[in-house]
Amino acid sequence: MPERSLARYPQAVTDWRDFSDDGLTPTLRAARGLFARNGYHATSIRAVAEAAGLSVPGLYHHHRSKQAILGALVDATMDRMLAHTRAAEADSDGTALGRFDNVLECLLRFHMLRRDDAFVASTEMRSMDDTLLLRHIAQRDEQQRMIADIIAQGVADGTFRCGHVDDGARAAASLCVAVAGWYDPTGVLTADEVVARQLDIARRIAGFPPPP
Amino acid sequence: MPERSLARYPQAVTDWRDFSDDGLTPTLRAARGLFARNGYHATSIRAVAEAAGLSVPGLYHHHRSKQAILGALVDATMDRMLAHTRAAEADSDGTALGRFDNVLECLLRFHMLRRDDAFVASTEMRSMDDTLLLRHIAQRDEQQRMIADIIAQGVADGTFRCGHVDDGARAAASLCVAVAGWYDPTGVLTADEVVARQLDIARRIAGFPPPP
Repeated sequence: MPERSLARYPQAVTDWRDFSDDGLTPTLRAARGLFARNGYHATSIRAVAEAAGLSVPGLYHHHRSKQAILGALVDATMDRMLAHTRAAEADSDGTALGRFDNVLECLLRFHMLRRDDAFVASTEMRSMDDTLLLRHIAQRDEQQRMIADIIAQGVADGTFRCGHVDDGARAAASLCVAVAGWYDPTGVLTADEVVARQLDIARRIAGFPPPP
Repeated sequence: MPERSLARYPQAVTDWRDFSDDGLTPTLRAARGLFARNGYHATSIRAVAEAAGLSVPGLYHHHRSKQAILGALVDATMDRMLAHTRAAEADSDGTALGRFDNVLECLLRFHMLRRDDAFVASTEMRSMDDTLLLRHIAQRDEQQRMIADIIAQGVADGTFRCGHVDDGARAAASLCVAVAGWYDPTGVLTADEVVARQLDIARRIAGFPPPP
């Protein structure tokens, strides 16, 4: 099943700010559009096949069910998000603020540029079977743990002031998710300006600068 | 159409913290459950009628279409949210911090207790026709403007430090919306503890306390 393996994210991330290539197969791209527009339960396998330019048997050659398509799409989305945020963190100066800024900027850009992917992954948690749901929650938790670790480093060395690190990490991640709901690429602010303003809010959530 | 008029929110709010009564008709309650679980496009008028214990013609007596049901549900949700936040603001001491705390606590409790209502209103924006969508956006904007006005008062009198008031108001509102996605009434923290922690994060977003 060569098409399916493409959906994972094996290649190295050369530029963690660059999300222009969605890395999806035609099938997953078609499914993303239909799930985002109409929802998982209102989308038939036939509609996905037609939008991808495949026959229904051709689609079943790559994916055994609609649930498997949702799983491959969500995995591709989360793999990509995690690979980029790890690269962003590795690209930092290693300080709490440096790590925080890079990881949060990466999450902001992901949710600004891959809005439909993020919308499907979050709204269709209701449609995931138990196996997929647990895997998705584990991926999401890994992302939040990365942010929590960074905030904890900053609390320990006095960079941040944050009484409940896990709450702060979740709120910072939620801020990025929310951007997918309102960001307009044709708006008056440039993408860099949106990132700068939202990153400033994320820093406040983490308690930077710490109060006197 | 007595059933439909119930969905609006004419009665005075006696306790703005109390969201235990959802104020919905049986039809709208049935629609909320089905839309939240399966999505708008996967829900038929017949399924709503069956879940509400009505015949299909009986349902059409109250609502002329599935879109009208979505509209009545979203209106009821937003009317309730706005009526309670106005009552919360009126119940404050009139200071920027007092108004902010009451309005944000109210929004947090709404999203903790009326999770399905909030989920449907936000995820099914994709399914709203132009008239309903514009009305919904106006309701949401009114809510955010209330928060922005409060932050602006606090910036003017030195209570808050917030360079971009509208961004701060949107982020504070988004924080409350996100709570609907993870809050677990059976979790280890009480509802009051969750409110206190999230309100602390909302205050940071608004720039309270202001940095030195």
